[in-house]
Amino acid sequence: MAIASSPSSLHSSLHSHSKTSITPRHSFSSSQGFVKILSRSDFCAVGRVCAGPLRFHANPIKVSASAAPVMDKPDSRVSTVVDVDLGTRSYPIYIGPGLLDEPDLLQRHVHGKRVLVVTNTTISPLYLDKVTKALTHGNESISVESVILPDGEQYKNMETLMKVFDKAIETRLDRRCTFVALGGGVIGDMCGFAAAAFLRGVNFIQIPTTLMAMVDSSVGGKTGINHPLGKNLIGAFYQPQCVLVDTDTLNTLPDRELASGIAEVVKYGLIRDAAFFEWLEKNMPALLARDPSALSYAIKRSCENKAEVVSLDEKESGLRATLNLGHTFGHAIETGAGYGQWLHGEAVAAGMVMAVDMSCRLGWIDETIRKRTLDILQQANLPITPPNMMTVDKFKNTIAVDKKVADGLLRLILLKGPLGNCVFTGDYDRNALDETLRAFCKS
Amino acid sequence: MAIASSPSSLHSSLHSHSKTSITPRHSFSSSQGFVKILSRSDFCAVGRVCAGPLRFHANPIKVSASAAPVMDKPDSRVSTVVDVDLGTRSYPIYIGPGLLDEPDLLQRHVHGKRVLVVTNTTISPLYLDKVTKALTHGNESISVESVILPDGEQYKNMETLMKVFDKAIETRLDRRCTFVALGGGVIGDMCGFAAAAFLRGVNFIQIPTTLMAMVDSSVGGKTGINHPLGKNLIGAFYQPQCVLVDTDTLNTLPDRELASGIAEVVKYGLIRDAAFFEWLEKNMPALLARDPSALSYAIKRSCENKAEVVSLDEKESGLRATLNLGHTFGHAIETGAGYGQWLHGEAVAAGMVMAVDMSCRLGWIDETIRKRTLDILQQANLPITPPNMMTVDKFKNTIAVDKKVADGLLRLILLKGPLGNCVFTGDYDRNALDETLRAFCKS
Repeated sequence: MAIASSPSSLHSSLHSHSKTSITPRHSFSSSQGFVKILSRSDFCAVGRVCAGPLRFHANPIKVSASAAPVMDKPDSRVSTVVDVDLGTRSYPIYIGPGLLDEPDLLQRHVHGKRVLVVTNTTISPLYLDKVTKALTHGNESISVESVILPDGEQYKNMETLMKVFDKAIETRLDRRCTFVALGGGVIGDMCGFAAAAFLRGVNFIQIPTTLMAMVDSSVGGKTGINHPLGKNLIGAFYQPQCVLVDTDTLNTLPDRELASGIAEVVKYGLIRDAAFFEWLEKNMPALLARDPSALSYAIKRSCENKAEVVSLDEKESGLRATLNLGHTFGHAIETGAGYGQWLHGEAVAAGMVMAVDMSCRLGWIDETIRKRTLDILQQANLPITPPNMMTVDKFKNTIAVDKKVADGLLRLILLKGPLGNCVFTGDYDRNALDETLRAFCKS
Repeated sequence: MAIASSPSSLHSSLHSHSKTSITPRHSFSSSQGFVKILSRSDFCAVGRVCAGPLRFHANPIKVSASAAPVMDKPDSRVSTVVDVDLGTRSYPIYIGPGLLDEPDLLQRHVHGKRVLVVTNTTISPLYLDKVTKALTHGNESISVESVILPDGEQYKNMETLMKVFDKAIETRLDRRCTFVALGGGVIGDMCGFAAAAFLRGVNFIQIPTTLMAMVDSSVGGKTGINHPLGKNLIGAFYQPQCVLVDTDTLNTLPDRELASGIAEVVKYGLIRDAAFFEWLEKNMPALLARDPSALSYAIKRSCENKAEVVSLDEKESGLRATLNLGHTFGHAIETGAGYGQWLHGEAVAAGMVMAVDMSCRLGWIDETIRKRTLDILQQANLPITPPNMMTVDKFKNTIAVDKKVADGLLRLILLKGPLGNCVFTGDYDRNALDETLRAFCKS
C-alpha cells in the first residue's frame, strides 16, 4: 500500500496567523490543498500521483479554526478552536492562554458528578489545584479525586496503569464519571487507555501540559502503554470529550521538552504542509523563545493537520500512518536506549533524519530537503543521529515488532517528491534501508 | 431509567424446534413479540407500560436462524446460524455438531496468515490439536501459535492477561493476525480483551467449549478481566469475526459446568421469553441428559435472545442491562466467596432467586413465578441460596462497585408483570432490598 499526501496550498496572510487573536474563521475544506489516496494494492508502491482535488465528498472533513468566542460564552478567552470531526465521536480542541481560568469551558464536558484527575509527580504541584478549582468552581456537586503517577516514559506500563484502576475502583467511581488527563503524552496515553477500559469505557478529557502532548499525543484518540519489547503495543483507539490546551502551562516546560514537541511540529511540515515548514524555518527563534503567538500558531496548525488526517483515517488503515514519519526508527531508539532516556521527540528527530536519509538514497527526494531537515532540527537543538549504543541489529530487532509490519513486511513512511509529500509503503529497495542503518550505526 | 421487555409470542410448532436440523428459516422481526423502551428520564421508574409493537423501524434487527447450509458449502454440517446484526461489526454464530471438522468454516474468518490460539490447561489436551488442524487443513500458509493459561475464574486477571500479550509480542504477531479463544467464558473474555488491546485491536474468533460461553459470554462483545475488588471492571466492548459452537465439545463438560450454563439459559426465559421458559420446564431432563437436539435448541434460542438484545443496545445504555438478571447479587457472591469457588452460573442462579424474591416483595410479580423459578433451578441442580459466608454487609459493599451503579444509585433488574417481563430500574423501595438481603443472609 502506498499513500501520498501533497503540499497544502499556502495560507493567505500566513504570517498574520502567528497572532491567533486575529485569526479569522476559516475552513480547511476550502483553503487546504489536496490529499490523494493511491491504489490500495498492498505494498505495491505506485510512486507519486498527479495532484487532484481533495476528496471531501467521499470523506467530509470539518476542520475549522475560529477566532470567535466559543459556544455561549461571549467573554471567553479561547482564541482558537479546532474541531476534530469523527461523527458521534467528534470533539473540540481549545487552544489559548488562561483557559484553566475558564471553569465553564471544562465543566461543560464533565459527565456525571465525579472526576478522576490522572497526573504525575511533576505536574501535580504545578497545576492540580488549578485544575481542581476549574472543575469545581461554582459547582459544588462535583467531587474530584486524583491519582499521581511517577513521571516518565519508563512508567508507561501495566503496573502503573493498574494504579489508575485501583484508585477508580477503591473510590467507587461508576460509569457516569470523567477521567481527566493532566500532563504530557505519557499521562494522556495512560489515562485515555484507563478510561477506555474502566467499566469498558468512561468519558475523559485531555489537558496536555507539554508541547508534545498539545500537538500530537492528545489529538486523535490513540491511547496505550508500552511493553518491555516495544512501545504502545497495548492500547485502544478512544476519543476524549475535549482537549483543553492552556498555552500558559508551557511556561513551566523544560527546554528539552519544548524541543521534543517541536520535532513533531516539524514533522507536519515535512509530510504534508510545506508552507508550515517554511513558516517554521523563519519562526524557530520565536518558538524557542516561547513567543506566545508563535507557539499558539504552531499548536493550532499542528492540531489542524493532525485532525484532518485523523478525520480521514481514524483507525490507521493507511493515511494516518503518515503521521509516523521517523517513528519506526525513533521507537527503536527509545526501546533500545531504555524508556525515559531519550524523550520521544528527540528519538523522532533522529528517526526523521534517518527516514529522510533513506528517502534520499532511494532518489525519492532532492538533497536540499535532507539539508533543510537537518538544519531545522539542529536549530531546535534536537539530535540528528541515534545514540552510539544503537547497532544495526538492535534497530532490526525492534523494527520487526513495529505495528506497521503487516504479514511480516515492514512498511515505512518516506518522503517522496517536493517538500510536503510522503508515502507509506512496503515497496522500497531493502538495500537503501540497510545502507541507512549502516550509515547511522557504528556497528 | 426503567426498561421493560414483554413476552415473546410463542413459536409456532415450538417443540419440533428441539431438532435443529429441521428448524425452518425464520426472522424474529416478524415472529417476536415486543420490546418497549420507556422514558429515559434517569432513575425515574415509570413502571410497566402497555404492550406496543416492536420498534423495528427505528432499530432494525436481523436475527435469523437457518437450517440451510451456510454460504457456499452445500455439504456443510452447520445446522443453525444466528446472525448478530451490529452494522459493520456484525458476525455469525454457527451452532451444530462436528463444526470443528469443517476447516472452511473457520478459515474464512481468519485474517492474515498468523493465528494465536488462547486456551487453558484443561481444554488444550482435548481440543487444541483439533482446532490447529481446522485452522491449517489445506492451507499451509497459516501458522498457529498458542498460549495455554491456567484454568479458572481466579486467573481472569491482569497478570494472566499479560501472558497473552507476551506471547503475541515475543512471536512478533502483527496487526494482520487473528486471536482464537478456545475455552469457556474466562478464556473468551480474556482473549477478547487481549485482541481489543493488542496493537489497539486485532481480529478474533470465539470457539466456546462450555455451555455458559456458548449461550452467554461469547455472544455480544463484552470482554475483560476482574479486579480484586470486583468482576469484569476492566475491559472493552469488542466483537469477534464469528462464534463457532461445536456442540460436540459439550461431551467433555463436567456436570457442574453444564448446570452453570443452564442458569443463563433459564434467565432468557425469565426476562423476555415465557415460551422458552415453558419449553425448559418440560425439557430440563433432556438437557441434563445432554440430548444433542435439546442442547442445540436451547443454545440457538439463547443466542437469538441475546443477539436481539445486543443488536438493540450494544453498549448497554439500558435494555442490554436486563441480561444481567441476578448478576448484581451473583457477582457479589463470586467476589465474596473468592473467584473460582462458585461457578458464574451457580452464583447467577442464587442471584436470580434473590432478584425474584425481591420482585415478589415489591408486589411486582405473582408468587407462582417465584415458585417456578426455584423449581426449575433446583431441577437443574443449581444453588438457590448464597453461601453462608455472605453477610448483608458483604453484599452491600460489593454491590456498591457494581457497573450498574450510576451517580451513586444502584439500578437492578427485577421481574415485573407476567412471566417473561422485567425492568431495569433504580426506583424501588429500599426496604425490599434490605428485606431480601436479610432473608438470604445469616448475619
